Amino acid sequence: MEARGLSDVVGSPAAARERQADVDIVLARWFDLARRRAELLGPEYVALWDELRASTEGGKRFRPLMVLSAYAALGGTDRDAAASVGAAFELLHTALIVHDDVIDRDFIRRGGPNLAGAYRDRALAAGASEADAEHRGISAAVIAGDLALTGAYRMIERSGAADHVRSRLLEVMDEALFASAAGELIDVDFAAAVEMPRVDDILSMERLKTAVYSFEGPLQAGGILAGAPEETITTLGDFGREIGIAYQIVDDLLGVFGHESETGKTTVGDLREGKRTVLVSYATTSEVFDPVRHLVGKADLSDAEAELVRRALVACGAKGFAEGLARYYANRALARLVEPHVPAGLRTELHPLADAVLGRVR
Amino acid sequence: MEARGLSDVVGSPAAARERQADVDIVLARWFDLARRRAELLGPEYVALWDELRASTEGGKRFRPLMVLSAYAALGGTDRDAAASVGAAFELLHTALIVHDDVIDRDFIRRGGPNLAGAYRDRALAAGASEADAEHRGISAAVIAGDLALTGAYRMIERSGAADHVRSRLLEVMDEALFASAAGELIDVDFAAAVEMPRVDDILSMERLKTAVYSFEGPLQAGGILAGAPEETITTLGDFGREIGIAYQIVDDLLGVFGHESETGKTTVGDLREGKRTVLVSYATTSEVFDPVRHLVGKADLSDAEAELVRRALVACGAKGFAEGLARYYANRALARLVEPHVPAGLRTELHPLADAVLGRVR
Repeated sequence: MEARGLSDVVGSPAAARERQADVDIVLARWFDLARRRAELLGPEYVALWDELRASTEGGKRFRPLMVLSAYAALGGTDRDAAASVGAAFELLHTALIVHDDVIDRDFIRRGGPNLAGAYRDRALAAGASEADAEHRGISAAVIAGDLALTGAYRMIERSGAADHVRSRLLEVMDEALFASAAGELIDVDFAAAVEMPRVDDILSMERLKTAVYSFEGPLQAGGILAGAPEETITTLGDFGREIGIAYQIVDDLLGVFGHESETGKTTVGDLREGKRTVLVSYATTSEVFDPVRHLVGKADLSDAEAELVRRALVACGAKGFAEGLARYYANRALARLVEPHVPAGLRTELHPLADAVLGRVR
Repeated sequence: MEARGLSDVVGSPAAARERQADVDIVLARWFDLARRRAELLGPEYVALWDELRASTEGGKRFRPLMVLSAYAALGGTDRDAAASVGAAFELLHTALIVHDDVIDRDFIRRGGPNLAGAYRDRALAAGASEADAEHRGISAAVIAGDLALTGAYRMIERSGAADHVRSRLLEVMDEALFASAAGELIDVDFAAAVEMPRVDDILSMERLKTAVYSFEGPLQAGGILAGAPEETITTLGDFGREIGIAYQIVDDLLGVFGHESETGKTTVGDLREGKRTVLVSYATTSEVFDPVRHLVGKADLSDAEAELVRRALVACGAKGFAEGLARYYANRALARLVEPHVPAGLRTELHPLADAVLGRVR
């Protein structure tokens, strides 16, 4: 769910750094305050807040950058308010990831222990059984996710935005959470189902689970905060939806065909996990893929076997299809930007984002 | 966490019924709207919303009654706004219970399957393994709890309360969630610890986990919404804290010594679970309890063994101590009500609540 490689193309590098710093300040202030309040309730609670804070660090602040870049491109000048709304989406992201890890029983993220993993490891070190230690990790993650989730809403509430703006921002955030919950539920259903879901069902699930809260919501929030006209906000949502879907497809491609050095993620992980992607869904409709089909989801898949799967994904046309589909959605996104009512500044700001997605499938 | 038996004494029975109906209407409207939105995203999502709605039903709306009763006693007349704020605390309660059940790996509540249990049972019926079915139940519960939690915040946001009132109400709700998360974390630590926690640590945990969001928060919210003066709101918080602690102690007493017909809860459950209560914590400091100590936490405790534990809890003085402690806190609560600045109407409204708690330990 990390939007790999895209943070670099949202606005100029200098603007992006400045915006990231603004968001970091808001988050730091929020965590400092929470920590001081937690101190009154004991060191264990302080430790939980510290772990939650650590979960928000190391990311590229991709969702806040979406907010701030739309906001600035539309003439917004209140950096504090924009940073608060950006931070709100970062906290929403954190909450969803922490709870997603509970659902996926994941104890690792970006190569190190995640929040649940940190608690599990500590319990193991203290002599707990594996099952008890995992349960402790999951318990802490459920609680921490709740704190981040409500923090996201509070961050908007306290952004200083005017009444009607705040109310609309909360609606956008609500819509994002509502969509993400639906996507997560569908994803759980997919994982349990024997049948491979269809390509369009996978796209729809990925859009709901990740793209709405990562692209559509943040872009629209930036527009709303900047006081942009309705048609611009609609376009921001449309652009976000198209580019978000394109991005998810590219992400699935990189998860199998990417270079670890670039993506920071192993390229056998998705295959070992048997992740339901556009690639694999397409492939399973082709006889060419039959001989390697049983390898998808093999927990101890070797590098050589992974290479066999990759070749079959190319041979059956799945790779080409997925690349084409990503291009299609990225082009649809670009088409929204040339609508006459879109301000030139916004076009300049968002064009590189679509280009970057396209660049990866050229 | 169900505030057994107390809903009947908050306000007159007729007033309570009317208030419950007001809250039910707000909740019904909210769930109806969510359901319509969910229909666009598929039948599985509708089913999740229906399960979440079912999780809010059958309760006595105790927390909303706290809000509405303080509000009415302080002269509040906007029934819609009060019902929304009441409903917000009901949703907070639902969210915390649903996530608490994830943490406790509970699939049953009030004798039937809870939300996680309903999903588990459905997966089992569809042929899933026990582990997979439980995991499905837990996944659905994590997602549903998130929806209820953000719903609670949104319910206050949309209560129609004036800006500064809404902002204070959200602070009260935030404080309640902040406290509950800390209490939940400490409770998890207690369950994992070998040592029995001290009586005051148990009281503190129970206050944080349940009493703040069930008593202090709702009462203060009612006062804030009614525009009561600061000192009244402070008193509402103080009264809520004292009566909330008293109530928790009584609840623990009823969990062992109550009558199933009255409490609707088995009186061996807490003992089988080895629940850390004031009763048991006190008892383990006494030699008289030594012969039965090993029975606390025995998963297959028989009725005869439970009776042995009960007798030892009486003989070692734990029952008398806990009753005395509950009386002490209930009397402290009552003392707050006679402070000169407390309006007579509020005193009349809340006195029966303290009486009811006291009545159970007389």
